[in-house]
Amino acid sequence: MIATGIVVEYNPFHNGHLFHLNEAKRLTDADVMIAVMSGHFLQRGEPAIVDKWTRARMALASGADLVIELPYAFSTAHAPQFAKGAVQILDALRCEYICFGSEEGRIAPFLNSLDTMNTQKELYEKTIKSSIQEGISYPNALRIAYEAIARTTEEPLADLSEPNNILGFHYMQAVKEIQSRLIAVTLERKGTHYHDAALPEDTIASATGIRKELFATDVAHVQSFMPTTAFKLLRQQPHQSWNHLYPFLRYTILREGPEQLASIADITEGIEFALWRAAKEHATFQEFMHAVKSKRYTWTRIQRMLVHVLIGYRKSTRAQITSPSYLRLLGMSANGRSYLRTVKKEMTLPLITRVGSHKDPSLLLDSKSTDIYMCGIHKEPGLDFKTPPILL
Amino acid sequence: MIATGIVVEYNPFHNGHLFHLNEAKRLTDADVMIAVMSGHFLQRGEPAIVDKWTRARMALASGADLVIELPYAFSTAHAPQFAKGAVQILDALRCEYICFGSEEGRIAPFLNSLDTMNTQKELYEKTIKSSIQEGISYPNALRIAYEAIARTTEEPLADLSEPNNILGFHYMQAVKEIQSRLIAVTLERKGTHYHDAALPEDTIASATGIRKELFATDVAHVQSFMPTTAFKLLRQQPHQSWNHLYPFLRYTILREGPEQLASIADITEGIEFALWRAAKEHATFQEFMHAVKSKRYTWTRIQRMLVHVLIGYRKSTRAQITSPSYLRLLGMSANGRSYLRTVKKEMTLPLITRVGSHKDPSLLLDSKSTDIYMCGIHKEPGLDFKTPPILL
Repeated sequence: MIATGIVVEYNPFHNGHLFHLNEAKRLTDADVMIAVMSGHFLQRGEPAIVDKWTRARMALASGADLVIELPYAFSTAHAPQFAKGAVQILDALRCEYICFGSEEGRIAPFLNSLDTMNTQKELYEKTIKSSIQEGISYPNALRIAYEAIARTTEEPLADLSEPNNILGFHYMQAVKEIQSRLIAVTLERKGTHYHDAALPEDTIASATGIRKELFATDVAHVQSFMPTTAFKLLRQQPHQSWNHLYPFLRYTILREGPEQLASIADITEGIEFALWRAAKEHATFQEFMHAVKSKRYTWTRIQRMLVHVLIGYRKSTRAQITSPSYLRLLGMSANGRSYLRTVKKEMTLPLITRVGSHKDPSLLLDSKSTDIYMCGIHKEPGLDFKTPPILL
Repeated sequence: MIATGIVVEYNPFHNGHLFHLNEAKRLTDADVMIAVMSGHFLQRGEPAIVDKWTRARMALASGADLVIELPYAFSTAHAPQFAKGAVQILDALRCEYICFGSEEGRIAPFLNSLDTMNTQKELYEKTIKSSIQEGISYPNALRIAYEAIARTTEEPLADLSEPNNILGFHYMQAVKEIQSRLIAVTLERKGTHYHDAALPEDTIASATGIRKELFATDVAHVQSFMPTTAFKLLRQQPHQSWNHLYPFLRYTILREGPEQLASIADITEGIEFALWRAAKEHATFQEFMHAVKSKRYTWTRIQRMLVHVLIGYRKSTRAQITSPSYLRLLGMSANGRSYLRTVKKEMTLPLITRVGSHKDPSLLLDSKSTDIYMCGIHKEPGLDFKTPPILL
């Protein structure tokens, strides 16, 4: 059986995702579609709009065969760590292909980028260093260094100022690094959605756009952008956001104080003082963010820190988690189940269908992040222990 | 000017407190009445029903001249530490007298108790040790040891199974220990209130009874037990309780996990695991408490731990705070103000009328406890910095 892996957040699942799922399947002639999906906290440092089991249901209803959780330590990490965790999981599941959306749309430029980065490593790193010394922000320093190495080759490179290209680049880098047999395939995305003339414009919106519309108006307004089942599931569930979690975040910043905050993952360079001052001052998440935001830190980077503060994800815990140590099954179709039976003996990480008593720091973190996610929507903790995989 | 000190929580201020205030003044012929009052968290491990400035107003309106805050590190401590902190503050303020309510009602038995405890120290400590080894709880071990030394004397001793006698004993012990010139005076209390035939029964209820009635029915039901101004102030303010703070407590227990909880003051002997399990299970504070409660721990002892968990009061911080380091003025009358002017040069601790930028760990803790107290009633943090003393 040919298995194709995709890396997703489904926040929430929409028509663009459905298109990607179907196209990935068609292009790779896959028998099984495997989605590695972020749990309750996402790469941009936000809580998912609905819980992970609901999002797994959305995926299964639209053609995914297996939904495996990308653990917290990777789902909320910067691109290289996020991508590596996802690739390691797909590799452990014995996938043939990884298929990702990119602004680029072709694989060759990514390969050229990887090669050039490799051969011009010294130039790349030197350029980053000197930019940083000039006070340029890290993302800009990366961009400048990349432009410098691009001038050393005539081959087309992937444009790494585009968000999906960045992730794609890191997937491919991870494949190379772990010497995975995964074959990378990419689909062109334009801006917020996939490029397909057959898809009518008014049925396509980005997940960001959908969340924005939903919070500003009403869930009914986003119906046309989502498959029917996904929409029904979205409508049934409470919608989580930073606004609901802010009272807890604010309380915990006040409680910890700058000294304790400094032990949290990603908190560096004295930003703990800015967080503490802003928590004292600001009653809403938006106001808080605007107070903390500066040239030095992107919005995403701050939000990611805040997720770690909210969860209590410490530097000492992060140091314990280097690679995924399990395959947490969130849901499967009958087809997915037979695939698992087939590859059972070849899988290189243990499959977890039910969380019992354990001491794995990554799994503890996942269940803790679930419990805290539920605090914001008045649901009970312990769901990670009580919820069996969704079966379609 | 003769100054008489009293140690109070005023949670809320009621007719019994008014009686005590007047009697203490009359008995000691005081020119100035000084109340050392707990801030936002109290000795039984509970948040005060209304904020400390409102309670200071109640006290000033009923005849107190100065209200000085008993810092968090003492207001939430067990009796010896609570009493010592309060006595040190009254001593620093150059009071002549400390007047406390007691079930005993006379000073002599307290003096006898202190003497006997001193001369029979060895017997006392040996008896405690052997009881604890037999698995007897600490409060019971204390009681048994006290009975043992009581048998060595013919003089009447204070009955230290009574709550107000215990505090009185510790006030007097602290006076002796710090070699204060304070003279102890006591007033008889019977059960929940002061013994006075002139006080009609239906105007007297304990603070506990008042809070219970108020939460079960309506604030209007407690009017007859309180002075008019105190009642008006109580009615105007939001009423804080563990129920409002429980979502934050629960969140923080889930976030910290047993490992981090173990660093919190008073958390010993593995109770962090019981707290963690109960937080996962129970959606209300009452259910939570019943789950954690055991023979080994009194309700009060657990609540005190929980306050420390809520505030993030760590063992390492407690180790830094041994004695009060300031006199935090919450409110004063004109009379109180002239007293301060008179004794200014004799006071042995700095008077704080306005909290600015500082690094005193006890004062940081006080302002943090204020901020967290306000989280539960949707008030803004930072009040400790913004609120000037109440002037009557």
